[in-house]
Amino acid sequence: MAIEGTHSKTAGRIRLGMVGGGQGAFIGGVHRIAARIDDEFELAAGALSSDPERALASAKELGLDPDRSYASFAEMAKAEATRADGIEAVAIVTPNHMHFPAAKAFLEAGIHVICDKPLTSTLADARKLAAIVEKSGKLFVLTHNYTGYPMVRQAREMVQSGVLGTIRLVHAEYVQDWLTEPLEKTGQKQASWRTDPAKSGAGGATGDIGTHAYNLGCFVSGLELDSLSADLDAFVDGRLVDDNAHIMMRYKGGAKGMLWASQVAPGNENRLCLRIFGDKGGLEWAQEDPNYLWYTPLGKPKQLITRNGAGAGAAAGRVSRIPAGHPEGYLEGFATLYAEAARAIRAVRKKNGRIPKDVVFPTVADGLAGVAFVAACVKSSKKNGAWVKP
Amino acid sequence: MAIEGTHSKTAGRIRLGMVGGGQGAFIGGVHRIAARIDDEFELAAGALSSDPERALASAKELGLDPDRSYASFAEMAKAEATRADGIEAVAIVTPNHMHFPAAKAFLEAGIHVICDKPLTSTLADARKLAAIVEKSGKLFVLTHNYTGYPMVRQAREMVQSGVLGTIRLVHAEYVQDWLTEPLEKTGQKQASWRTDPAKSGAGGATGDIGTHAYNLGCFVSGLELDSLSADLDAFVDGRLVDDNAHIMMRYKGGAKGMLWASQVAPGNENRLCLRIFGDKGGLEWAQEDPNYLWYTPLGKPKQLITRNGAGAGAAAGRVSRIPAGHPEGYLEGFATLYAEAARAIRAVRKKNGRIPKDVVFPTVADGLAGVAFVAACVKSSKKNGAWVKP
Amino acid sequence: MAIEGTHSKTAGRIRLGMVGGGQGAFIGGVHRIAARIDDEFELAAGALSSDPERALASAKELGLDPDRSYASFAEMAKAEATRADGIEAVAIVTPNHMHFPAAKAFLEAGIHVICDKPLTSTLADARKLAAIVEKSGKLFVLTHNYTGYPMVRQAREMVQSGVLGTIRLVHAEYVQDWLTEPLEKTGQKQASWRTDPAKSGAGGATGDIGTHAYNLGCFVSGLELDSLSADLDAFVDGRLVDDNAHIMMRYKGGAKGMLWASQVAPGNENRLCLRIFGDKGGLEWAQEDPNYLWYTPLGKPKQLITRNGAGAGAAAGRVSRIPAGHPEGYLEGFATLYAEAARAIRAVRKKNGRIPKDVVFPTVADGLAGVAFVAACVKSSKKNGAWVKP
Amino acid sequence: MAIEGTHSKTAGRIRLGMVGGGQGAFIGGVHRIAARIDDEFELAAGALSSDPERALASAKELGLDPDRSYASFAEMAKAEATRADGIEAVAIVTPNHMHFPAAKAFLEAGIHVICDKPLTSTLADARKLAAIVEKSGKLFVLTHNYTGYPMVRQAREMVQSGVLGTIRLVHAEYVQDWLTEPLEKTGQKQASWRTDPAKSGAGGATGDIGTHAYNLGCFVSGLELDSLSADLDAFVDGRLVDDNAHIMMRYKGGAKGMLWASQVAPGNENRLCLRIFGDKGGLEWAQEDPNYLWYTPLGKPKQLITRNGAGAGAAAGRVSRIPAGHPEGYLEGFATLYAEAARAIRAVRKKNGRIPKDVVFPTVADGLAGVAFVAACVKSSKKNGAWVKP
Repeated sequence: MAIEGTHSKTAGRIRLGMVGGGQGAFIGGVHRIAARIDDEFELAAGALSSDPERALASAKELGLDPDRSYASFAEMAKAEATRADGIEAVAIVTPNHMHFPAAKAFLEAGIHVICDKPLTSTLADARKLAAIVEKSGKLFVLTHNYTGYPMVRQAREMVQSGVLGTIRLVHAEYVQDWLTEPLEKTGQKQASWRTDPAKSGAGGATGDIGTHAYNLGCFVSGLELDSLSADLDAFVDGRLVDDNAHIMMRYKGGAKGMLWASQVAPGNENRLCLRIFGDKGGLEWAQEDPNYLWYTPLGKPKQLITRNGAGAGAAAGRVSRIPAGHPEGYLEGFATLYAEAARAIRAVRKKNGRIPKDVVFPTVADGLAGVAFVAACVKSSKKNGAWVKP
Repeated sequence: MAIEGTHSKTAGRIRLGMVGGGQGAFIGGVHRIAARIDDEFELAAGALSSDPERALASAKELGLDPDRSYASFAEMAKAEATRADGIEAVAIVTPNHMHFPAAKAFLEAGIHVICDKPLTSTLADARKLAAIVEKSGKLFVLTHNYTGYPMVRQAREMVQSGVLGTIRLVHAEYVQDWLTEPLEKTGQKQASWRTDPAKSGAGGATGDIGTHAYNLGCFVSGLELDSLSADLDAFVDGRLVDDNAHIMMRYKGGAKGMLWASQVAPGNENRLCLRIFGDKGGLEWAQEDPNYLWYTPLGKPKQLITRNGAGAGAAAGRVSRIPAGHPEGYLEGFATLYAEAARAIRAVRKKNGRIPKDVVFPTVADGLAGVAFVAACVKSSKKNGAWVKP
Repeated sequence: MAIEGTHSKTAGRIRLGMVGGGQGAFIGGVHRIAARIDDEFELAAGALSSDPERALASAKELGLDPDRSYASFAEMAKAEATRADGIEAVAIVTPNHMHFPAAKAFLEAGIHVICDKPLTSTLADARKLAAIVEKSGKLFVLTHNYTGYPMVRQAREMVQSGVLGTIRLVHAEYVQDWLTEPLEKTGQKQASWRTDPAKSGAGGATGDIGTHAYNLGCFVSGLELDSLSADLDAFVDGRLVDDNAHIMMRYKGGAKGMLWASQVAPGNENRLCLRIFGDKGGLEWAQEDPNYLWYTPLGKPKQLITRNGAGAGAAAGRVSRIPAGHPEGYLEGFATLYAEAARAIRAVRKKNGRIPKDVVFPTVADGLAGVAFVAACVKSSKKNGAWVKP
Repeated sequence: MAIEGTHSKTAGRIRLGMVGGGQGAFIGGVHRIAARIDDEFELAAGALSSDPERALASAKELGLDPDRSYASFAEMAKAEATRADGIEAVAIVTPNHMHFPAAKAFLEAGIHVICDKPLTSTLADARKLAAIVEKSGKLFVLTHNYTGYPMVRQAREMVQSGVLGTIRLVHAEYVQDWLTEPLEKTGQKQASWRTDPAKSGAGGATGDIGTHAYNLGCFVSGLELDSLSADLDAFVDGRLVDDNAHIMMRYKGGAKGMLWASQVAPGNENRLCLRIFGDKGGLEWAQEDPNYLWYTPLGKPKQLITRNGAGAGAAAGRVSRIPAGHPEGYLEGFATLYAEAARAIRAVRKKNGRIPKDVVFPTVADGLAGVAFVAACVKSSKKNGAWVKP
């Protein structure tokens, strides 16, 4: 996209609602910035907190019409669906266990859903949700936001183009250190719900960050998982979910992979890395330095491809906003998913409208695959690392 | 700032106008994204192009009220000053030579100005403008956007805190390669006006990017230039302004510096770097990897301070939006200047309102210093590198 | 060691023999340079090739006394053991399958052995050799040369000192790309014997480079392997040994690890990396940039410890030759093992002489552990990744 | 060179003497390791210290024949010149002011000289020495050791091949921090003589390290200095020579350069960097990571050329010893100059023997240029940065 090139103000901004994301939340604010960056959405309604007072205060702070600050997502879905100026899409940014009921409510009310990951906290919910999306005919955008980074798009395009040859190896890792100590015992909000299986699901690091690494590997390589062998640990005493996951993977067609997710590795902030190797070349990318993609054609010098720089192709250029050498970051990558959602929404508004081919975003199918991945990890680890199909 | 922590929607968004930034322009789009990121402004009026048709088409694309799309900045200043819902601030994003008349018009109409750099295309204009700002009592925010990067704020805070000891050396460079060949001869818009002294001023690389490097060195070190010796070149045949500048600097108090600005160094996209050394420690920062600041206390291992990570202080934290390890980029740094402008505007609205101490942005004085720097470079180079005071 | 600080010419250089390493060989030349760097050895005899003509030509080229160029290691061991000026130590640098008989011959002749890794090509031989060493009372130095890098010593010292706390995670990888294509089919000498199980042993990448990564992890962490789960592949059609190995590890005491060895990952030359994490800090080291060790104390900024620089301790200083910022490389690390061997040899010459505590080198026990590691990998992989004890 | 490929033991090792380099010295030990690495030399005589007792003790430690440990270089030159087994070359590794008389003595005695840099401590001596070398017909090898790094050779070859086009810019720096505080006042030996103009010459940082950066820029670019403008400082109170030098350069033919030499920049160990830009491409190299050369062909992605890796050419391959990914360091680069000296010495032994074209080493002419560079820096700085021809 050129700067502001995707939106079409003549058609007006898309009205967006939000579930969750009230005061004290983290990811809701990220979604709002992401929605604003390319100016395609306006926040028009919210059920911002399960605590009614906080919901109202949050709505006020954000300048929402008080009439459209709701006490529950159910109420919001119902009311907005009947307003002439009702929201056309909703962003669901609650803890994991609430994704399912909220998404169900809005889809059934005929409202497109943009939902944070992981899709749901249980595999059963994930399967149900996939069916609900299918039945609803509505759009479902899962914010595996790392797929919005231009150089991730570049990598994917290069794999698709065949320059790497047949893919043999996919190495992904997402490593943090913020749970090295039992932070959840201090009452820290993020740590508390993320280590509570009732809210986060059965996977800890596996679900919270492992799913990102897994999704990224599939997104770029185009491969599908056949089976995995996992060895999960909770290194911190008393922790109820895994905080470290070692996983070996076998993809359909013969490629192999390793995946490491950890929240107890001091010196790592958000070290999400992907390395992919084929019989003709290799790629390396790291989320903390997202404007760089390292490409080695077999037998030639390693090349540094930069966002919007020499060597970058159309897939990356489409989702870049500024020239090479001026770094774009996490928020811009996230914004790209909102921009893609906007393009898709505008497209399907039209009779027989189809989403343009170059519009790319993770869907409910990716979300289901992620939840199945977590379930397989947990199952394999309980069976001492037996190979489990997702 | 925490996410969205600075704005106060109860008071509503600040109405913003824009001069320049129509279709085909680059920096205008950047300003608009920057203004949106923290949701403090709404674009309410524009004189988006000197070409009336393009102005109107651009306004329509941006969803502006057609009544508030003006054919000239003069008309806009006059009309908006008298509207009850007139703009409170204007962003000036034209080529350099138009900064002066536009800024003058809005300041004299009682409207705050956010202006792209360099301040003006001549030193005489810069001096006049400084006086006009003084007289107007209005805010003048110069978008030396690199000062908005959190780790630049961190560096400045560390110098101020004394951990580097007495500053001895300031090494700055801003190096690009996009003008290695005579791109202006192809009619490329950015290259054309930037190499035309009538539009850009007497300095080429010096004015376009050297001023950023110079400003950054002063911003972080707190030092003031005493004199400089410059050797400017136009390596490309027929180019009318410098495309490479070698500069030695002497700061008041005895510190020394070197500055290199170039647009003809293949392999450099936007390599803006700053290295500062005192008798107790050293700092290194590079714009292309802006979330990292390297700090070496004398005699101890080099440390990597990351945005919002361990070791980062209040000045950086205030202007960070997301956790360490999730990179913020150029647009967020730029947005910080808009957020600072918003805080300042809201503060001075109040009777006897004062700008909070922690709100930091480049002013007309910095702009004047930058234009004086360019003038001194040109003068020194003409005098075979004689030491010239700015 | 300070420069040349370890040797004591008054006692003369140690007479060294060599088995293997004739014309066309690679590692023999490396051993000879390593032996020369600290000037502790003089090459006095050789059985440089199994091809007698090549042996003689090689000896001549190296300036060996023709009388001491032998047609076989057996002859050499016998002859040298009886000379008054016979060799005191021998370097064995043949393909893997010859390590055992050669080492046996020299040990039984009362000559110290410096032997390339892996120890042997079969686990049975490795066990026999360990017993032979024990019985001989002679020194056995296994050139796991990466343990000679100063920053590896530094890392080990830091783990031992407790600054990392309890070790939880050991991540090691050794990744290359030179066998991405079937190079062995071209007759290339290195590729041919390394992919021939009769010469290299059952492990391909596992034995050739995986053992280095495994040894390094144990050397630095001080941990002992409990069991492993491996998934080995030969991605190149017709290759008889693995060229890629994914391995999950469980150490005694509860730490976990992952190990990746590959020779088919384009863009990797000799990417041997080690990352170790405890509950108080983390370390990262990469062989291709060996003068740097990254250390993060939990909750503090990452630090860069450099060889002989600030923050480096005694263990690294002892084996550094030149000041920080002047890089030492692979040959110096290799030379450190020869210097350690020399110190040990001089020490045990004395009646009741003991090897000084700070002299550190891999022994036959490390070699046996390495061969057992390879055997366990092969066994686990054949059993579909079952956990196998070494 | 392939490993040990240059030497020819059938002809025996070259007998080498050494002046300076006794106990407590630094660079003498480096020269001895460098001379050993490729096994072309044997140390046969020495005047290792101006202190006779230290000279003798040093000689004993190194295993020299006591008869060939001399009390003075004059005595040594005389005696060795008349011995049938006298030295063929001498390494001069004293403080700078002794280079001239020692070199003169050996050259006049018909002995080749390998001399540490800078050539002499005064320009007058340098000129005289150049004439003496000319008259003597002997070889003079100046150990600007950084020219021995393979990737420096690679860079030079690429410039010569024209892939960079016309060279426009040469940016060199050599930055350290070890003299940030007045270390010389503690009596530290290295600091003491290097800050004493009587021993080091008029230049401090300029002579000690600036000459390396200057030489490197000329070596790689092939350019010749026209004039320079320098601003030298002694930031440490009471220091008699410069500890920081800012220099602008003009090369013959129109290229420009900047050079920064400093010993007071905390966080820098031996940061010697070179960046060269032509109208078709750019190169970057840093001594602390010497196995990497970054090459950007204009308009294409930056490439990483590695020592002995893909993209490296003949000039680098000749002086590499081990495969890509196994780093060579400072000592190997230094050794390359000894290997080149050996090839040259063996060549000129033959009647009408000529030095092979691919043998490259810095000569007395380079040494004279370096001393002239220092003199010009001092002169320019005294004249307030006036442009001075060397």
